[in-house]
Amino acid sequence: MSSTAGQVIRCKAAVAWEAGKPLVMEEVEVAPPQAMEVRLKILFTSLCHTDVYFWEAKGQAPLFPRIFGHEAGGIVESVGEGVTDLKPGDHVLPVFTGECKECRHCKSEESNMCDLLRINTDRGVMLNDGKSRFSIRGQPIYHFVGTSTFSEYTVVHVGCLAKINPAAPLDKVCVLSCGISTGLGATLNVAKPKKGSSVAIFGLGAVGLAAAEGARIAGASRIIGVDLNSNRFNEAKKFGVTEFVNPKDYKKPVQEVIAEMTNGGVDRSVECTGSINAMISAFECVHDGWGVAVLVGVPNKDDSFKTHPVNFLNEKTLKGTFFGNYKPRSDIPSVVEKYMNKELELEKFITHEVPFSEINKAFDYMLSGEGLRCIIRMEE
Amino acid sequence: MSSTAGQVIRCKAAVAWEAGKPLVMEEVEVAPPQAMEVRLKILFTSLCHTDVYFWEAKGQAPLFPRIFGHEAGGIVESVGEGVTDLKPGDHVLPVFTGECKECRHCKSEESNMCDLLRINTDRGVMLNDGKSRFSIRGQPIYHFVGTSTFSEYTVVHVGCLAKINPAAPLDKVCVLSCGISTGLGATLNVAKPKKGSSVAIFGLGAVGLAAAEGARIAGASRIIGVDLNSNRFNEAKKFGVTEFVNPKDYKKPVQEVIAEMTNGGVDRSVECTGSINAMISAFECVHDGWGVAVLVGVPNKDDSFKTHPVNFLNEKTLKGTFFGNYKPRSDIPSVVEKYMNKELELEKFITHEVPFSEINKAFDYMLSGEGLRCIIRMEE
Repeated sequence: MSSTAGQVIRCKAAVAWEAGKPLVMEEVEVAPPQAMEVRLKILFTSLCHTDVYFWEAKGQAPLFPRIFGHEAGGIVESVGEGVTDLKPGDHVLPVFTGECKECRHCKSEESNMCDLLRINTDRGVMLNDGKSRFSIRGQPIYHFVGTSTFSEYTVVHVGCLAKINPAAPLDKVCVLSCGISTGLGATLNVAKPKKGSSVAIFGLGAVGLAAAEGARIAGASRIIGVDLNSNRFNEAKKFGVTEFVNPKDYKKPVQEVIAEMTNGGVDRSVECTGSINAMISAFECVHDGWGVAVLVGVPNKDDSFKTHPVNFLNEKTLKGTFFGNYKPRSDIPSVVEKYMNKELELEKFITHEVPFSEINKAFDYMLSGEGLRCIIRMEE
Repeated sequence: MSSTAGQVIRCKAAVAWEAGKPLVMEEVEVAPPQAMEVRLKILFTSLCHTDVYFWEAKGQAPLFPRIFGHEAGGIVESVGEGVTDLKPGDHVLPVFTGECKECRHCKSEESNMCDLLRINTDRGVMLNDGKSRFSIRGQPIYHFVGTSTFSEYTVVHVGCLAKINPAAPLDKVCVLSCGISTGLGATLNVAKPKKGSSVAIFGLGAVGLAAAEGARIAGASRIIGVDLNSNRFNEAKKFGVTEFVNPKDYKKPVQEVIAEMTNGGVDRSVECTGSINAMISAFECVHDGWGVAVLVGVPNKDDSFKTHPVNFLNEKTLKGTFFGNYKPRSDIPSVVEKYMNKELELEKFITHEVPFSEINKAFDYMLSGEGLRCIIRMEE
C-alpha cells in the first residue's frame, strides 16, 4: 500500500481554463479513488487530435475548466473499493472508452461499445457520484473522457484501464491508448487484408499511418496512400505505403483512379479522414466480389453517405469501427505484446517529445500539422 | 453414350415470341453441345420473378424470340469437347450464373461473381460461338441467362451446372437453382446469425421466406417479417417467422419500430424487396456494435442509398450478396444435401404444379401474387 493511498494528492496538472487558450500549470488536488476507480501516476502522455478538438470547443458545448489528455501510460497508485483486477504498482494504459465486462456489448464477441463506459465527451465527472476528483482550492476541475492524463495523478474507472506488461516502455506504448490502436485495429480486426492483397488508406495522419502499419503487418503487397497533402507521402513510406494518390492530381474521381491502378479495385480500404467524399470514394474503390471498406474518420453531423445500392449487391462490404474494435481491457495488452515482439513498430509514430512544463508546444506542433505524436514527459 | 449424342434433337419448348405475350408451345431444334457445353433433358422447371421481369421487358432492351426459364432440374444427355466433370446420366441443376474455376473471382474464397460466366441478361447466345443452340425451321431462338429451361432439352455451359446427388427428387430441388438459394445463402453465408439471435426479413416473397428459412436453420430465436402485405404473415409462420411488422401500421419509420421491439435493434437483417427505402430501413434497424444488414433485392437504376455515416461508425455492417454467395458448382450440391438430410424444408415453397403444356398458368399465378413457386412438369 502506498503512503498516499486514501489521501488527497497534490500534484501538477495542465489545466484548460478556457476554450482555445494555452493550458496553465496548476497545483491540483486529486481525491482518492472511489468504488471501481483507480488512481494512477501518469509517467508519459501524448497529444491526440481529439484533445485539441474539444479544447477548441468549436463544435460542442464548452466544459471548462477541464484537464484534457487521454493517450498515456501510468502506474497504479491506489485502488478503490471493489477493484480486484489491479493493484498498486501495475502498469496501465488509460483508455477513453471502457469495458465493464457485464453489458451486452462487452459480452458480445463482436462489439467494444460498452453500454456503461462508452466514450462520453460531454460528461466531465466520474460515474460513481457524478463529481470530479480534481479541484483547485475547492473549485472542481472537469475530467475529459474519463482519463484526464495531463496531470501527474488522475483517477480513472477500472473499466478504462488496460493492464499491460510491466516490461513495456511506457514512453512508447502510451500511444496505443487511442489513435494508433484505432488505425491499427481498423485494418487488423475489421478490414482483415490477406497476405499479398491490396489496401487503400485514405488520410495519412497518425491514424491512417497506423492503418497502413496494420496492412504492412498483415502482409499486404500494395498499400496505396491517398491524401490531399503530397508532403505526407515520403513519411508514409516508413509505414509500408507503396504507392500514393493525391486526388487533386486527377480530374476523375479517386475511386476510378484506384480501380484503374488495381484492375478493378483494391481488396480493402480504410478511411481515416472523416470527409464524406473520402468515405464514398473509399467504399466505391474496393473490388466487386470481395472488397471491404472500413470507416474510421468521424464525419460531420449533417453528412449523408450516398452510393448506388448496386455497389453493395456486387458483394462489397462497408463497415465502421470504433477504437479499432479493440476491447480496452481484453485486447490492448496483446497490442502491447505486438510491440514487444517487434511485430508492431511504434518509434516511427513518435516525432516529438517535450517536458510536461512545455505541454503547450505539443499543441503548437499539432495545430501546425507538424509530426505525428508528441510525447509529454511528466517527470522532468 | 445416348443415341441422340451429336445429333440435333427436336423437342417441345415454350417460346416467348413477344414481350408480355403468352408463351407458345413449339417444336424446336436443339443443336449438340459445343466445347465446354452440356445438353440436358429438363425434367422439372419452375418460374421465378426474373423470368417474368425479362419476359415483360419493361426495363430493358427486348430480346425475342426467346426461351426463358432458369430454375430447373435435369439429366445430362450428352457433353461437348473438354467437358470432364459431367457425363450422360448425371443429375444437374442449371444455374443462371457460373463458375469457371479459373478466374480471380472463382479462385477467391469470398466471391461467386465469375468473370467468365457471371449472369448476363443481355446475351441471348452461347459464349463459344456467339450463336444460339435453339432454332425453329432455321430461325434462331435466343437463350436466357445461359439456361433456357422452358424446353425439354437445352444446352448450358458446363460452368453453369451443379452436379447433385442422383437420389435427390428433381421436382423439389429444382427450386434451388435460383431464388431459394439466393435467400437461404444471404442468411446462412452472409448475415450468419448466431443461435438465439434476432433477424429481420424485409419482403416475404419466395426469396425473403428462404432468407427466413435460413434464419430458422441457424437457430435464430426471433425472426421478424416485414411486408406491406399483411396477408403474407400467416404463410410466413411456416418459415420460422415469429413476429410481423407492416410498416403501413405505424407513423414512425419501421427501423424505429424494430429498434423498440428489440431493445436497440436486431442482430441481423436481410432485405429482399429491392425497394430503396426498405434497404435503408434494413440497415438502420440493426444493432450498434454487431449488427449486420444484407441486401438481396435488386434496386432501380436511379436509386441512391443514403444514411448518416455515424450508423457505420457505430459498428454496423452493410453487405450485399448475389446468389446467396454460393458458387454454383462448388456449393449448390451441399445445399441439396441440406434438403436430403431434412435440415432444409423445400416442400413449403412449392405451392402449385402444372404440366408443361399449361406453363402460362404459372405466369398467371405469379402475376396475381398467388403462391410461391409453381413447378412445371416437362413429362406429361
